[in-house]
Amino acid sequence: MTSVNGLRRSLVLKRRPDGEPGPEDFQMVETALPAPGHGEVLTRTIWLSIDPYMRGRLYDRPSYAPSVGIGETMTGETVGEVIASADPGFAPGDYVVGSRGWETHSLSKASDLTKLPASSAHLSAYLGVLGMPGTTAYSGLKDIGQPKAGETVVVSAASGPVGSVAGQLAKRAGCRVVGVAGGPDKCLWVQEALGFDDCIDHRSHDVATALRAACPDGIDVYWENVGGAVQAAAFGQLNFFARVVMCGMVAQYNDARPPPGPNLGFVVGKRVRIEGLIVFDKPERYGEWRALAAPWVADGSLKYRETVADGLETAPQALADVLSGGNFGKMLVRVGPERV
Amino acid sequence: MTSVNGLRRSLVLKRRPDGEPGPEDFQMVETALPAPGHGEVLTRTIWLSIDPYMRGRLYDRPSYAPSVGIGETMTGETVGEVIASADPGFAPGDYVVGSRGWETHSLSKASDLTKLPASSAHLSAYLGVLGMPGTTAYSGLKDIGQPKAGETVVVSAASGPVGSVAGQLAKRAGCRVVGVAGGPDKCLWVQEALGFDDCIDHRSHDVATALRAACPDGIDVYWENVGGAVQAAAFGQLNFFARVVMCGMVAQYNDARPPPGPNLGFVVGKRVRIEGLIVFDKPERYGEWRALAAPWVADGSLKYRETVADGLETAPQALADVLSGGNFGKMLVRVGPERV
Repeated sequence: MTSVNGLRRSLVLKRRPDGEPGPEDFQMVETALPAPGHGEVLTRTIWLSIDPYMRGRLYDRPSYAPSVGIGETMTGETVGEVIASADPGFAPGDYVVGSRGWETHSLSKASDLTKLPASSAHLSAYLGVLGMPGTTAYSGLKDIGQPKAGETVVVSAASGPVGSVAGQLAKRAGCRVVGVAGGPDKCLWVQEALGFDDCIDHRSHDVATALRAACPDGIDVYWENVGGAVQAAAFGQLNFFARVVMCGMVAQYNDARPPPGPNLGFVVGKRVRIEGLIVFDKPERYGEWRALAAPWVADGSLKYRETVADGLETAPQALADVLSGGNFGKMLVRVGPERV
Repeated sequence: MTSVNGLRRSLVLKRRPDGEPGPEDFQMVETALPAPGHGEVLTRTIWLSIDPYMRGRLYDRPSYAPSVGIGETMTGETVGEVIASADPGFAPGDYVVGSRGWETHSLSKASDLTKLPASSAHLSAYLGVLGMPGTTAYSGLKDIGQPKAGETVVVSAASGPVGSVAGQLAKRAGCRVVGVAGGPDKCLWVQEALGFDDCIDHRSHDVATALRAACPDGIDVYWENVGGAVQAAAFGQLNFFARVVMCGMVAQYNDARPPPGPNLGFVVGKRVRIEGLIVFDKPERYGEWRALAAPWVADGSLKYRETVADGLETAPQALADVLSGGNFGKMLVRVGPERV
């Protein structure tokens, strides 16, 4: 039936990581390939997306999504190829994207899958610029940030798959856009390739001082991906009626007891709005964004970048890298080839 | 022309207070009564409103309103009686409310004044329940908090002129309403007179523990008047999609260097919205609220309470009291009699 001898390999959670997650927290298990029942589709995994939010699934505490149980396959979004289908909407050879797991093969309900264009030259893009991270950027600016031409927008983790799209969209909206990223290579790419007006290397600069120089008119929209010192610096320079898109605080995801935050007195007098964002609250944004952005990806005007790790077994280290900024652009694991 | 021998007494700022403000920071000065020019109105002050926001005007730092300069008359809202008018819209004997100052007489542009009903039995109410604090409560719930029937609303400084109205409005909206106030007398009044479902005395209870008991379904709307430990406790119990109306953080107004705040990681996953409120951003709310609430005040269904200090010279101590919770309900200074 398949080229993997009828076996599925899956990474299951062995124990809850203390601090940074690593390979020792997961275990590779092999099981027989399941056969799709009525309305189900079996796929082989090509691309596995690695995202900071995954760290939250490893804690045993209430969150917006259930945590992964010990012995359960770790969850994740993937792009795959259909190898068997018991649903009339899908046929072997179709490419699909959906929320599945850290596994070589997935059995999914057909209704949980989105079919991708057969001719796509950018399959992996549906996990990044055209997928969950890109949609997050689109939704966060549309629903919370609402940047207006002439405003100043600051984006943390600016070279990542969310920040890079948020900043490019803010540039399209006519804003002054300043990124914050870790290291000179990332900052150079953010300025040169993505066209941000400035990018601050938080590893070699005092962020508050550098932001003050880069944002002479203050900050109208702050896109929060990181928390910590970058948050403190940005919050201190917000303008009246500024909006803060709270997308993530990756700097503290490995901390069981996060540190104190900023004093919020400024929120009153400046009438700041701080609002949390989870992309799946507005599922209609996915389709809107794909329709809007696919032509921009095709014509090269919307830029993205990927870091690829090879083999399912690299996923735990890839997650650790994402949490420490070891990736550059969208972090992906290549679980299988695009064409077989 | 008047009964004060043609002199106006004013409290001017002598020096910027270090910590709690007091009488020694102000100076009483006497000047000749001014005569109204074209379009101007001269009033004698009856009621002076004392509000926590005034502490911010005493700092020499940028804020949403200019700070009061050394030697300048302290600003404040007052209810007064017209004693001379050079504007066709006002005549001696009219009662008016407006932003003026800590002074026995005020010269105002007619356009800055609102005429009060001649028959009002509640002149002082136009500085409290029907004035800026009441309008703040109305606007904050309408524009930010948006409580829905069945939700749980927590109001800090619940016996104050803002909190008491916010809570009564949330009750009218069908919510479970829990107050936080300082001392058993205030808590009793909040529960018995205002009809809150519960009220926690933050001086004798651990607020987090007491809130957990009083809010078994978590908190959907938190009305922030105080900051500090009450804020930390409330933020820790917010529900998904909770709204926080950031109206004030009086616990720290005397601190030149406010303490750290809460870690904001929860804002992302819970999609909390935290938004600052200054009532004069939506001036139309004043008239809306007066029209809505005046009948409720007249029929006694909207309750309020006042603490009155006698004589303009008591204003500095009254401000210190408001900042430390020494008032009970709306803090007022009686500068002159209602009828002469």
